[in-house]
Amino acid sequence: MRPSGRAPDEMRAIDIQTGFTKHAEGSVLISFGETKVLCTASVEERIPPWLRGKGEGWVTGEYSMLPRATHTRGSREAAKGKQSGRTQEIQRLIGRSLRSVVDLKKLGERQITLDCDVIQADGGTRTAAISGAWIALRIAVNKLMESGDIKQDPIEGKIAAISCGICNGEPVLDLDYDEDSSADADANFVLIEGGRIAEVQATAEGATYDEEGLLRLLRLAQIGCGNIFAAQEKAVK
Amino acid sequence: MRPSGRAPDEMRAIDIQTGFTKHAEGSVLISFGETKVLCTASVEERIPPWLRGKGEGWVTGEYSMLPRATHTRGSREAAKGKQSGRTQEIQRLIGRSLRSVVDLKKLGERQITLDCDVIQADGGTRTAAISGAWIALRIAVNKLMESGDIKQDPIEGKIAAISCGICNGEPVLDLDYDEDSSADADANFVLIEGGRIAEVQATAEGATYDEEGLLRLLRLAQIGCGNIFAAQEKAVK
Amino acid sequence: MRPSGRAPDEMRAIDIQTGFTKHAEGSVLISFGETKVLCTASVEERIPPWLRGKGEGWVTGEYSMLPRATHTRGSREAAKGKQSGRTQEIQRLIGRSLRSVVDLKKLGERQITLDCDVIQADGGTRTAAISGAWIALRIAVNKLMESGDIKQDPIEGKIAAISCGICNGEPVLDLDYDEDSSADADANFVLIEGGRIAEVQATAEGATYDEEGLLRLLRLAQIGCGNIFAAQEKAVK
Amino acid sequence: MRPSGRAPDEMRAIDIQTGFTKHAEGSVLISFGETKVLCTASVEERIPPWLRGKGEGWVTGEYSMLPRATHTRGSREAAKGKQSGRTQEIQRLIGRSLRSVVDLKKLGERQITLDCDVIQADGGTRTAAISGAWIALRIAVNKLMESGDIKQDPIEGKIAAISCGICNGEPVLDLDYDEDSSADADANFVLIEGGRIAEVQATAEGATYDEEGLLRLLRLAQIGCGNIFAAQEKAVK
Amino acid sequence: MRPSGRAPDEMRAIDIQTGFTKHAEGSVLISFGETKVLCTASVEERIPPWLRGKGEGWVTGEYSMLPRATHTRGSREAAKGKQSGRTQEIQRLIGRSLRSVVDLKKLGERQITLDCDVIQADGGTRTAAISGAWIALRIAVNKLMESGDIKQDPIEGKIAAISCGICNGEPVLDLDYDEDSSADADANFVLIEGGRIAEVQATAEGATYDEEGLLRLLRLAQIGCGNIFAAQEKAVK
Amino acid sequence: MRPSGRAPDEMRAIDIQTGFTKHAEGSVLISFGETKVLCTASVEERIPPWLRGKGEGWVTGEYSMLPRATHTRGSREAAKGKQSGRTQEIQRLIGRSLRSVVDLKKLGERQITLDCDVIQADGGTRTAAISGAWIALRIAVNKLMESGDIKQDPIEGKIAAISCGICNGEPVLDLDYDEDSSADADANFVLIEGGRIAEVQATAEGATYDEEGLLRLLRLAQIGCGNIFAAQEKAVK
Repeated sequence: MRPSGRAPDEMRAIDIQTGFTKHAEGSVLISFGETKVLCTASVEERIPPWLRGKGEGWVTGEYSMLPRATHTRGSREAAKGKQSGRTQEIQRLIGRSLRSVVDLKKLGERQITLDCDVIQADGGTRTAAISGAWIALRIAVNKLMESGDIKQDPIEGKIAAISCGICNGEPVLDLDYDEDSSADADANFVLIEGGRIAEVQATAEGATYDEEGLLRLLRLAQIGCGNIFAAQEKAVK
Repeated sequence: MRPSGRAPDEMRAIDIQTGFTKHAEGSVLISFGETKVLCTASVEERIPPWLRGKGEGWVTGEYSMLPRATHTRGSREAAKGKQSGRTQEIQRLIGRSLRSVVDLKKLGERQITLDCDVIQADGGTRTAAISGAWIALRIAVNKLMESGDIKQDPIEGKIAAISCGICNGEPVLDLDYDEDSSADADANFVLIEGGRIAEVQATAEGATYDEEGLLRLLRLAQIGCGNIFAAQEKAVK
Repeated sequence: MRPSGRAPDEMRAIDIQTGFTKHAEGSVLISFGETKVLCTASVEERIPPWLRGKGEGWVTGEYSMLPRATHTRGSREAAKGKQSGRTQEIQRLIGRSLRSVVDLKKLGERQITLDCDVIQADGGTRTAAISGAWIALRIAVNKLMESGDIKQDPIEGKIAAISCGICNGEPVLDLDYDEDSSADADANFVLIEGGRIAEVQATAEGATYDEEGLLRLLRLAQIGCGNIFAAQEKAVK
Repeated sequence: MRPSGRAPDEMRAIDIQTGFTKHAEGSVLISFGETKVLCTASVEERIPPWLRGKGEGWVTGEYSMLPRATHTRGSREAAKGKQSGRTQEIQRLIGRSLRSVVDLKKLGERQITLDCDVIQADGGTRTAAISGAWIALRIAVNKLMESGDIKQDPIEGKIAAISCGICNGEPVLDLDYDEDSSADADANFVLIEGGRIAEVQATAEGATYDEEGLLRLLRLAQIGCGNIFAAQEKAVK
Repeated sequence: MRPSGRAPDEMRAIDIQTGFTKHAEGSVLISFGETKVLCTASVEERIPPWLRGKGEGWVTGEYSMLPRATHTRGSREAAKGKQSGRTQEIQRLIGRSLRSVVDLKKLGERQITLDCDVIQADGGTRTAAISGAWIALRIAVNKLMESGDIKQDPIEGKIAAISCGICNGEPVLDLDYDEDSSADADANFVLIEGGRIAEVQATAEGATYDEEGLLRLLRLAQIGCGNIFAAQEKAVK
Repeated sequence: MRPSGRAPDEMRAIDIQTGFTKHAEGSVLISFGETKVLCTASVEERIPPWLRGKGEGWVTGEYSMLPRATHTRGSREAAKGKQSGRTQEIQRLIGRSLRSVVDLKKLGERQITLDCDVIQADGGTRTAAISGAWIALRIAVNKLMESGDIKQDPIEGKIAAISCGICNGEPVLDLDYDEDSSADADANFVLIEGGRIAEVQATAEGATYDEEGLLRLLRLAQIGCGNIFAAQEKAVK
């Protein structure tokens, strides 16, 4: 029995509010249950120095938690003067995941930055961030296509992410904070609509797992991402 | 005629949502028109080293803008590795303002941090932050009093802040971004309910101003803060 | 009765030594009583990146205290690796104040940096810095005009700054360290010769103040700045 | 056909020199072909602040590349003043992997730091680091057991890591730099002797992959880690 | 012929103003010609953590140049966020030199920091700093002895420093900026009254030098330090 | 009697392995007894901004200790976010020393960086670094001459460095860690083949020294560097 009473393959409610803020080219507040992440897409007509002259664009991600998104207040990274290893790991993952479904040539010489700021955390912030960032990106690219700045759609498909884990020996989908902090294994899957995998990160915490366990987690992730793809579709209509 | 069509002494709509996030002891999303600031109060049972053994508490503020709170994306201070002078100036002002209505002895040996994170900016973020932070503080202190951790109310009164400015030669209340970026003078007032002043910061931008101008701005601020005090009262009821 | 025996509207002795150091285009050691600040103006034929191509110049300020300018040694900001919020606040104020009397178009595409280094502190360092920086700027600009690098005088008037405060309920002019550390309210005024105001920063410390108090402080500041304008005039003759 | 002429399931030569440096409690130079990593284990009788009083120890990892370990010189992180996201990600992985086979209670209140410094890089530096760090840790713990400082062996098993990838559509084992920089997918597996998994990190680079691909990579990793376990066994005998 | 017209073994005028600032326990403005360094000694009743419980004190130095002490403005180290290698090298030299004439046991558990801030630079700033710092230290220690805080004089002798160099093939004493920037070799000597050497740093710049050259520079340094010892004696009388 | 049993003028065994790593244009592992330093020369076709357009090249050095090169683990400078004063002092010395035997005009507009990474420390790391860096530089420059990128040999001679010290009143050559940590005086000499001096740094530690002592240390250094020159000659043949 899960603390939340959910079935092992049951996700939390997904809620998506597009246009949550007004300045960004794409802006989404995505919730997986009590986890709430504000994802904005900012289009800038400049590219990183190492890309100049290649006729390509860039998509990158940044991630942060508000200090009191969590149960106890965390210190502000800007005040400490550096981003934690965890933050950097997550923002590298966000950028890499989104780039795996974008044709950078078709994007043209511009950069889109996906800012994922966690307003409230209850487990699964990075997966909500990736899933919401895709929506913000989609909205921003739609505007570029409507304005004629981009001719061919650079987005090749939907991408979504979900966490799974082994809790008390049982594989479960979409861990909340209670489960996350006591899981034996914790995995994040980034999947592409249609059955391909962009990224698997599966980590033993208390106990280790085996091949069978890995596969069962992947199956759960496919269920979860199916739900997210449907919610994304509805949001960008 | 103001760009927004408001009268010179007319504030933007004030909107206050308490309990916007669930972990903080006090949590408020305050809006002055399109400016939206999330203010949370975090209570910690520890105090800064230089206060140890004095039997007093501490109240402090932190401030940040989400990178795309603004018209064009600003770079993330955590990524740059330092907070700007502007950020530091504002968070010093937030802390100082709130401390001016708190009896730190009555607070006891604990620290309350007011995190003010700007979700969307349209002028007046620091004044919305102070006004909202007071509500978050009030809610957090109420909980400490209900639980019996604090015996006597350490909050001595309400505090609110508002910006005023001289635009096209005319003193106006509660500048939005359009007015702020073209004002001749820009002033922030932090007022205490009952007619006392906690802070005045009045800066000439394009033109300078005189004693008469300063007084007219102060009168506008008194009108604006009157509105905010009423909204605060309603929010914490 | 003030600790120094001064009348409420009595400034400390102002002493100005021009040419205190030899390399800077303008160099002044200004003293307000025991507060001594070395102000130098450095002219550089380059401008900040964001001003390029606009045909304008820039005036900026930097501020620092020598570690043992104060009663007890403060740690060196260069060793700590960052400037305090207070330092940044002050140097932003210095730059803003001086720019309010300079026509940046007439200055041409060059930058003048006013370095204000506090040799000895006894209250009022930022106001002495602004008052002395104007003299250093005036001397440097005079040289640029003599050499023909500047055709029209970009300096539109004199600017001076002074602190006032409420001590034991009484408004007093030009606080020294003893008064500053026990004042109920502490205000810095930056005034322009002829009666205009560039900046007011008035902060409640122990007690708050009211409109009447603010006006009485402004009146004292006008007296103090009158004295400083006279001393500036004499120094740059 | 692989650039190196190796079969798809063929690892590079593993070479292990124990005692490469003399001061560390454990010291190993491990080579996977031309990739050479110096792994040292340092025992310190102190623990991180957040572990105090729990009767447990800690195992952590640090990672760095010498500037000219690579084809072109990389700038020194100490000179830049911060560690890259990649470095932090790798050192978090090293620590997490080793902790998954250590009983921190049995280790007692001491910390063992595994420093992994890449002397020469040719792909697979993080996996060589983890594999070598286990040996250094084993040697250091052996000394603590011989001296009687530790009563019961805190190391619960062997751990090894290997990279696999999909190159030209073909899953291959132990990528060198040439393969790594052109792979369609790149995966790092951290496996525990006996068939359990500690960590999977599988990332699509050019193309994405599917469940079948993931499983084929895992099978290769099991072959590779089998070889490494044998080499580890021989080295610590 | 030297640019300044001085004889090869002729120092610049030494000027020493004690009590230049009022807060420090020892305060000296020392000039070697146009080079002016403010040296202050600050006594603090605390010691570095690694000295605790040893019954010893500590003497350390810090060094900085005001931004416009030089011909062209240098950027402020506090603004850049780190001290240059040159600054660190010099402050390590100042501390080491002064400690070579202090019995740290006799000093007791307190720290004396010698802050050497260059007000104006014309070559030889580090040697003026060491020579002036000794005076500030002597004055501060005298006060500690007068107050009875120290029983036995911890200062074992005078220390002074001077630069010498080879210019146009000729060894010369006390280089000013013109000579310093064109010297073939540049040496700094820290000598103890009575003929002992604390430090020699002799560096080839354009050309190299030989044993004979080194000895000739040392002889000049002995002449120069003789003058400085006499000036120090007079200053602390 | 020295702890190592060596005669006062006896160096430790010098061992030089060229080609220790494969990517660098020059790569040397140099050992002075148990002190082992990896020196690599990296050639880059770019120069520092301040050299542009002068038709000259640049030679610079960087230095670092692996964290467990020493008896007890030192913290990693990249993790602390800054290089120590000692590190900066040493890398400035390495660069300056090598430049003293290089004609930068003949090198052409390219930079050679000598990275000196201490693998194991037992005293004399900076002198081993300089001596080894010269070999790496020589090898790299030979390649540039063979490829025709450089026409005339820019290296004007050999340079070597050695430490000497006064231990128990006796001048001795090439101090190991035991001697280094208890020496009365500690000197590093950088000598050029043929009898010229590039740098002398002689520091009193416990006791001071006199002119006679300095000369005796220099004589020992000449013996030591003679040995190193012979070893360098053999290594680059």
